[in-house]
Amino acid sequence: MDRKLLTLIMMALPVAAAAQTGVVAVHPANNEGRMLTMEEAVLGRNTRPDNVYASWIDDDTYVCRIDGKWMSTDFATGKSSEYSPERINVSIPRDAAGIERSSAGTFAYTRGNSLFINDGTETCVACSEDSQIVYGQSVSRDEFGISGGIFWSPDGSRLAFYRKDNSRVTDFPLLDITTRTGSLKSIKYPMNGMESEEIRLGIYDLAAKTTVWCDVNDFGYDRYLTNISWTPEGKYIIIQVLDRTQKHMKMNMYRADNGGFVRTVLTEDNARYVEPLDPVWFLKGTYSFIYRTNNRDGYRNLYLCDTLGNVRRLTAVDADVAYAGNDGKTVFYTSAEMSPVENHLFKVSVTAKGRRMPDGNAASFKFGTPVRLTSEEGWHNVSLSKDCKKFIDSFSSFNVPQVTNLKTTGGKLIRNLSIASDPLVQFKTGKVVLGTVKSADGRYDNWYRMFFPADFDASRKYPVILYVYGGPHSQMVQDSWLGQVRMWEMLMAQKGYIVYVQDNRGTQNRGAEYEMAIHRQCGQLEMADQMVGIEMLKSLPFVDAGRIGVHGWSYGGFMTISLMTNYPETFKTGVAGGPVIDWKWYEVMYGERYMDTEATNPEGFARTSLIGKAKDLKGKLLICQGAIDNTVVWEHSLSFVQKCIEEGVQLDYFPYPRSEHNVMGVWRTHLMDKVTEYFDDNL
Amino acid sequence: MDRKLLTLIMMALPVAAAAQTGVVAVHPANNEGRMLTMEEAVLGRNTRPDNVYASWIDDDTYVCRIDGKWMSTDFATGKSSEYSPERINVSIPRDAAGIERSSAGTFAYTRGNSLFINDGTETCVACSEDSQIVYGQSVSRDEFGISGGIFWSPDGSRLAFYRKDNSRVTDFPLLDITTRTGSLKSIKYPMNGMESEEIRLGIYDLAAKTTVWCDVNDFGYDRYLTNISWTPEGKYIIIQVLDRTQKHMKMNMYRADNGGFVRTVLTEDNARYVEPLDPVWFLKGTYSFIYRTNNRDGYRNLYLCDTLGNVRRLTAVDADVAYAGNDGKTVFYTSAEMSPVENHLFKVSVTAKGRRMPDGNAASFKFGTPVRLTSEEGWHNVSLSKDCKKFIDSFSSFNVPQVTNLKTTGGKLIRNLSIASDPLVQFKTGKVVLGTVKSADGRYDNWYRMFFPADFDASRKYPVILYVYGGPHSQMVQDSWLGQVRMWEMLMAQKGYIVYVQDNRGTQNRGAEYEMAIHRQCGQLEMADQMVGIEMLKSLPFVDAGRIGVHGWSYGGFMTISLMTNYPETFKTGVAGGPVIDWKWYEVMYGERYMDTEATNPEGFARTSLIGKAKDLKGKLLICQGAIDNTVVWEHSLSFVQKCIEEGVQLDYFPYPRSEHNVMGVWRTHLMDKVTEYFDDNL
Repeated sequence: MDRKLLTLIMMALPVAAAAQTGVVAVHPANNEGRMLTMEEAVLGRNTRPDNVYASWIDDDTYVCRIDGKWMSTDFATGKSSEYSPERINVSIPRDAAGIERSSAGTFAYTRGNSLFINDGTETCVACSEDSQIVYGQSVSRDEFGISGGIFWSPDGSRLAFYRKDNSRVTDFPLLDITTRTGSLKSIKYPMNGMESEEIRLGIYDLAAKTTVWCDVNDFGYDRYLTNISWTPEGKYIIIQVLDRTQKHMKMNMYRADNGGFVRTVLTEDNARYVEPLDPVWFLKGTYSFIYRTNNRDGYRNLYLCDTLGNVRRLTAVDADVAYAGNDGKTVFYTSAEMSPVENHLFKVSVTAKGRRMPDGNAASFKFGTPVRLTSEEGWHNVSLSKDCKKFIDSFSSFNVPQVTNLKTTGGKLIRNLSIASDPLVQFKTGKVVLGTVKSADGRYDNWYRMFFPADFDASRKYPVILYVYGGPHSQMVQDSWLGQVRMWEMLMAQKGYIVYVQDNRGTQNRGAEYEMAIHRQCGQLEMADQMVGIEMLKSLPFVDAGRIGVHGWSYGGFMTISLMTNYPETFKTGVAGGPVIDWKWYEVMYGERYMDTEATNPEGFARTSLIGKAKDLKGKLLICQGAIDNTVVWEHSLSFVQKCIEEGVQLDYFPYPRSEHNVMGVWRTHLMDKVTEYFDDNL
Repeated sequence: MDRKLLTLIMMALPVAAAAQTGVVAVHPANNEGRMLTMEEAVLGRNTRPDNVYASWIDDDTYVCRIDGKWMSTDFATGKSSEYSPERINVSIPRDAAGIERSSAGTFAYTRGNSLFINDGTETCVACSEDSQIVYGQSVSRDEFGISGGIFWSPDGSRLAFYRKDNSRVTDFPLLDITTRTGSLKSIKYPMNGMESEEIRLGIYDLAAKTTVWCDVNDFGYDRYLTNISWTPEGKYIIIQVLDRTQKHMKMNMYRADNGGFVRTVLTEDNARYVEPLDPVWFLKGTYSFIYRTNNRDGYRNLYLCDTLGNVRRLTAVDADVAYAGNDGKTVFYTSAEMSPVENHLFKVSVTAKGRRMPDGNAASFKFGTPVRLTSEEGWHNVSLSKDCKKFIDSFSSFNVPQVTNLKTTGGKLIRNLSIASDPLVQFKTGKVVLGTVKSADGRYDNWYRMFFPADFDASRKYPVILYVYGGPHSQMVQDSWLGQVRMWEMLMAQKGYIVYVQDNRGTQNRGAEYEMAIHRQCGQLEMADQMVGIEMLKSLPFVDAGRIGVHGWSYGGFMTISLMTNYPETFKTGVAGGPVIDWKWYEVMYGERYMDTEATNPEGFARTSLIGKAKDLKGKLLICQGAIDNTVVWEHSLSFVQKCIEEGVQLDYFPYPRSEHNVMGVWRTHLMDKVTEYFDDNL
């Protein structure tokens, strides 16, 4: 749930870019850069909508397909026009989704629950005649880094794909009010501790027109098949197989021609959880690969491995890193090693010898000293060219809205592409402060950003709003412009509130122990850490300790209600959006990772559940939720409301009838008005 | 929807009876009376819950069955104890519902969708093997006076029963949050203009063990079969058959032995609607019957009829009357002829000659002059003994909380049973006023009651709350104690509001023209009439015209939002419960009677729909609704909320997650607190 939300928040950066995106494309011929429009950028993102396919088709033209219509965009002008499908020689039906193009030019996509390929003629590769069986779509509710279900082999001769059997998964009913008579829209929702999906991986041979199935025999039917990788020559497939408890992972290799099991390359085990998030990345021209895990050295580091199971640590830093690319000789990665709130690009030279597969000699690895490629303080988003010779470095820091440069990976500036001016220059804004407080256990610095009213007068007393998320895989505070400002915080500061945002244990970029400390007790350490910040605020002479509010969505909605009911004397007013109320109603994949199950962790579920806390609610609380939320289902907030009714506790509620987990577009304007009004009226 | 709500409101009268019911039972042996407990009274009511059967089994013992358990209550003490089923010689399964006992002692009831009889041995009379087919249950969503689906013949030798085919009716999905995983609870909801139920009437012969079906050939499949009556000797059944448009009714007679059509006894036609509400009542010992309609003389009067179609008006008053009983020589009825806000018992002597059936001579009718049997001003609820020699007269009037007398139908007082003291004597209450204003067209007096704050000071300005219902079959103001006071009105008056309640065109007890004037334009004349009252209030020097609020539920919720959006400058604050938003989403039976269909009345639907009015909302509006409302389905209020979101209009909302159309029990306390708080905070 979180990453989607977080994406949204981060997309709003920098605030300048009402009509811009912060995404720059560079023309390969002349290195000219241009800021993409929001539409172009969205189309080009990895997070593209299901029904969109986008690609450069030649050096000047970017083609995208949206809602069944092909559009081409001329790079120089940014002008879009309808595109004749003959040029790509394939007519793809309007309802095609998840479109992937092989290196040989064949398209694969799903229609309904079936999987098709199309090289001019459409062929059904896996035809579902049962509504419970789904081919070629994403599985495991997009956890474990999964975002699709179609995996072309490197040469395009084979197509691997997921098969999901939903027969055992509960239906959760949603109400569709857009039909003449309100109608049922059921979703499949595997709920904590309940029966889950059964996943298989098929491999279709385009020449033979046959499908084989990977012979996975570990962990029973509701294991997870995650992070599918092809070996470079296309003879093998690597699957990171995870058991239902998420405590054991086997990286297994299978033959592409018959699905046969070859060997377990390596394993990971953890009494809390193992969370594979990435496929493996083969070093170009070799059979050695780079693998990322946080299960070996306390941080999410990169490792050089071979398919015989040799593993050697590549990034030896006490910081989380992320893979960025390789050209066979150099590996590029970004790292939090300068500071948890900064992100920098590094390169390290690598040699791996021993290439025979799968049973040849073990590889011998050598590598050099890492070299930092980004120098300016702050948060760098980088995009490497295919040949790894150039990269776009787009960065901002606390006082720098955004600078985008085109550079060589040798370290030279080719040219500056854009420098954003202060987008708030026309507004009367107050001071913004970046700082740290200790975690409740005293072991860590937790970063915060704090917004002051424009005409701040230290002799007055100001109300405070804590904006909170706090869940795994988030990082609310970075050393990017004004600490990752959101316009709503600016607005509230303008209206006379001090707004405070702080990270806590459980969030990302701080290593495994910090991240996993919340295991089996979601919310508890997060609250303790947030309360350190609140106590700091209360100690400030200009803070009105009687007027502290809290607002958050999703995990942040859970945090909001947790804080209001655990610290009823502290928080006067809260707004919780799409809140988790009891982890037993949340999905299997995310929920069992952090909480295990109700059966194996009864105390943890009891302590974190907000149902038993309803009676402790004292302040004014507004809950907002999308009425067709398919992530945090409506059972959560309705059950909390029901409990409040039974306890005689008053609270407020507002549904967004056609919204899913997040309230989007113009509806979001309504939401933010409502939230703002609620604090104005009640804090 | 309305009558259910109204019942609730009226049950709360008099306010004295927190622990009492206002229902008195009289012992037949010694004429001693005793106030029944709420439980006894509910069990003994016609409005009994489905799963309850209650009856006197001898002169001293009252037996009831609730949730599968038999209980007996000793009349003298009111003590209940478990009752041995051997004494009634029949063991009825726990899941039996709609239990009816024949005069011969055989029980009939439904289990699931099937119909059973039981005289010691259970036999399935009509077994449903299709979830869409329902035997023996109520049909047509309890409209047209229908409240059950089992009709014993007078001697118990035959059993008539409804068969309802739901195949064509839309499913409406509700969310059940009481299950581990929120689950689907679908209801069958025939929506305005959409496909509806198909109803048949079967007649089961207990001796022959065969079923025949009444051969109804009028009006197509989705006609209504209403108000089933057996002729006294059990040879014929009379059905008031109504067409889908509800503009044409045929009172048809069928043979009980083979279901054959005998003749149409009489017909009713009306360009607006015909609404049969009562079975016919045969004069004891004759084949003549009493029939009630408002389609002949402008008021709901009684008529003497025979099965050959002779009809003679019995009650010749310009007022609505209601049948109360007959002993073959005298007909008893209550009537609004003294005043629309008073209810009195009358009797009239009757002779009807010509008894041969069905083709004998027409009856000749004679009758005398009506005699009024209740003398005191006010509203009399009466209950006749079986032999029509005695009646309980329970009345209250504006200044009389409640008096209950046992009287002879000769007009003599046998004894007083109870006199309620002023239940509000311990509270500091303000003045209550009963009065009238003109209807907007000047033709009628509309009654109101108005509550003043306790320490009313005419030199101050007070805010006003209009409590409104306004829909058909309701009457909010009667000449009963304090004009039909509700405790919430007293509470709000105590808190410093003037509370105003007024009837309007469309409501009951005022004749057909008054009632039907709203046809095809629900809400329009009702608003016009309410606004006459509001203008009167605004003209009062002690009314703060800038602080007028409005509150209502169901039709009253529709009225609340209609008033707030049509008169946005008048109403500052409103609370609408379970509101109809657009009549196209309301049920076929009630909705098509008053509005016709969207196809035949597009202008009426457009004008009355609140979707198009969302943009006009200016005041503070709170909508409350039961989240499993099966009467005004959630599509209504969610669609309005969605429209407000799209229009950028703010409003408030609160769901009662486990409540249906009304919020009951302790949940209702929460609701009334919420409503009260909303006015306190926003008016």
